[in-house]
Amino acid sequence: MFYANIRCKIITRNKVGRRFKSVITTDYKLSSKILPKETSVFSLVQPSGTMHLGNYLGALSCWGDLCRIKQHETQDLLFGLADLHAITVPQPQGKEFMKQKYDTLAYLIAFGVDPAKCKLYMQSDVREHAELAWYLSTITNISSLSRMTQWKAKSAGEKNKATDFSNSSSSLGLFSYPVLQAADVLIFKSEYVPVGEDQVQHLELTREIAEKFNKQFNCDVFKIPKVLLTPTKKIYNLKNSEKKMSKSDPRPGAVLYLSESNEDIRKKIKKATTDSITDKAFRFDPKERPGISNFINILAGIEKKSINEVEVDLENLRSHSDFKQYVGDKLIDWIEEPREKYLELSSNPDYLIQVALEGKIHAQKKAQETLRQVREVMGFSNF
Amino acid sequence: MFYANIRCKIITRNKVGRRFKSVITTDYKLSSKILPKETSVFSLVQPSGTMHLGNYLGALSCWGDLCRIKQHETQDLLFGLADLHAITVPQPQGKEFMKQKYDTLAYLIAFGVDPAKCKLYMQSDVREHAELAWYLSTITNISSLSRMTQWKAKSAGEKNKATDFSNSSSSLGLFSYPVLQAADVLIFKSEYVPVGEDQVQHLELTREIAEKFNKQFNCDVFKIPKVLLTPTKKIYNLKNSEKKMSKSDPRPGAVLYLSESNEDIRKKIKKATTDSITDKAFRFDPKERPGISNFINILAGIEKKSINEVEVDLENLRSHSDFKQYVGDKLIDWIEEPREKYLELSSNPDYLIQVALEGKIHAQKKAQETLRQVREVMGFSNF
Repeated sequence: MFYANIRCKIITRNKVGRRFKSVITTDYKLSSKILPKETSVFSLVQPSGTMHLGNYLGALSCWGDLCRIKQHETQDLLFGLADLHAITVPQPQGKEFMKQKYDTLAYLIAFGVDPAKCKLYMQSDVREHAELAWYLSTITNISSLSRMTQWKAKSAGEKNKATDFSNSSSSLGLFSYPVLQAADVLIFKSEYVPVGEDQVQHLELTREIAEKFNKQFNCDVFKIPKVLLTPTKKIYNLKNSEKKMSKSDPRPGAVLYLSESNEDIRKKIKKATTDSITDKAFRFDPKERPGISNFINILAGIEKKSINEVEVDLENLRSHSDFKQYVGDKLIDWIEEPREKYLELSSNPDYLIQVALEGKIHAQKKAQETLRQVREVMGFSNF
Repeated sequence: MFYANIRCKIITRNKVGRRFKSVITTDYKLSSKILPKETSVFSLVQPSGTMHLGNYLGALSCWGDLCRIKQHETQDLLFGLADLHAITVPQPQGKEFMKQKYDTLAYLIAFGVDPAKCKLYMQSDVREHAELAWYLSTITNISSLSRMTQWKAKSAGEKNKATDFSNSSSSLGLFSYPVLQAADVLIFKSEYVPVGEDQVQHLELTREIAEKFNKQFNCDVFKIPKVLLTPTKKIYNLKNSEKKMSKSDPRPGAVLYLSESNEDIRKKIKKATTDSITDKAFRFDPKERPGISNFINILAGIEKKSINEVEVDLENLRSHSDFKQYVGDKLIDWIEEPREKYLELSSNPDYLIQVALEGKIHAQKKAQETLRQVREVMGFSNF
């Protein structure tokens, strides 16, 4: 299986044997049982603007699922765009950046993140995030931050840049990224944080920071969050199955965007690199058949099926053209409705602003209450 | 001379030959000519609570002078307590920290920082500081920060700790300190920042950050501040002239507090370590006569005289007991009025809160306007 499908399994150790106290993995079909009747779920995504299938099968798909399984008003779902995190790497400026963010918001809503079920906001609209990040920065060791895998990857390029700072060209913001992330999660007293595997280490740091704060200030201001490890799918480039699907790839046909026309979807699938094996059924085998496996993975993601189930669906297909026709049918069938909704939403900024404003008001109220408590125990006034 | 007394001299290079574009040194007697008719002056001090003579002859004395030379309403003087910076090293918590801050405020006002002439506020009451610090952190290189002399000194202890972070026990807050300081200065579009020599490097970084932001976002949101290098005096321990006066010294009589009684002042001066030279006039000679020179420096500071002028005053004295009697007379004469005022103010928290609140309102208004401009050019909404 490509990802764990054991419902609510508690992982206790990561790859290097370090203990993760509270990582909960979810099935590919989210069950409503996973959410307690009273709970709070929180997550942010980078506002990348144009979204492709790889983005969708990352965070986006799971947020929609959470909206669908929500049964009680007391299940507070708060999602948003991490625009304060986004600026740790170059972004467009002013109105152009704003447009990119509202475009992302339109994609989120169109592809299943339902504002009637959750609140959606822009991180930068809740000013309390940066304030809490400063407080937390005073109790976070720089040694912990220099050990973050994502920091090492992003700051890499030259040897020792992750720990020797004298010649680094990375920004302080990039280094401090996990502390702002901790502030995001803790300010809402979130119980569950759905993230992909690459964010588990940051969330573990968040837990450490929360525990340290509560202990140091002899309080229980912060709730210790649990990670909801969602079955995110790593989708590969249609032209090169060794590379992750990424909009930075300039080759035509490498990336499948969520706004793509039916015609272009057919064309891109037809021209996608697969293989020349003709005597076998289509099975998930990333090593021998990476191109085919990538499509099987995509089908599993959009149809909310396991890899096995998809393989059963494909049992009777033999020719590559039939396979590609099948994938195209499924993708077009799946994409048509949300794509139209996206096009409609992206031309209705007033509605999007209204969603973001309502999200802000909801999020800010929670953030202000937590910050009031933080300031009181630290010794800052609340007048 | 102990410090430069050339009025408004522009220093163009620092000790290592690096160019400082705009450092203005002031005379020991501040002239009203130094302030343009329309200008803004801003500075913060750490809220250490109990203050001693060394603290006073640092920032405090100059702030009082600036209040005295202010002639126009359009000369905006804004001073405050850097309580967000203070927490980068251990501090008391909750009400105890709050008391420490209001005590510092009482000292400031009692010793000449006049709320009728300037605004006084607590840094933590203007939430915009931390927000701007985050934005600036995304354009500040960690290599620049790892070169800061103060960081190197504070993070020291083990070799390479300032640049190799993998084993450092320093906090992110301590490392990010100069970026918050840049945010403090820039958010008020301050023109002059009175600081001591040890802060000149941080202010130079502030100027670099401001220029980088204006260039990167093609705007002129930030005013490039000038340093007002004030003649701060380094006051030494009364029991050990090699050490700076510091409240961390446990020896009785080492430190002269601003709340000290006349009797204790006499006693501490009498028991202060000086020397046994009896055949010479009392002259400023830190190498040969450190104890005597420390007192001469103190006299110059509280009387706003040059070292030469103080030496002339002391010309006819020969015996150490006469000298110590003279110093005691001058100190008691100088301290009596503000000391009583301090005692009165520190028992009147309502008044202090009122001052801090008025300061906050004034400061916040300026900060919010700058932040509005920053957010607009970056692409964050202002609803």
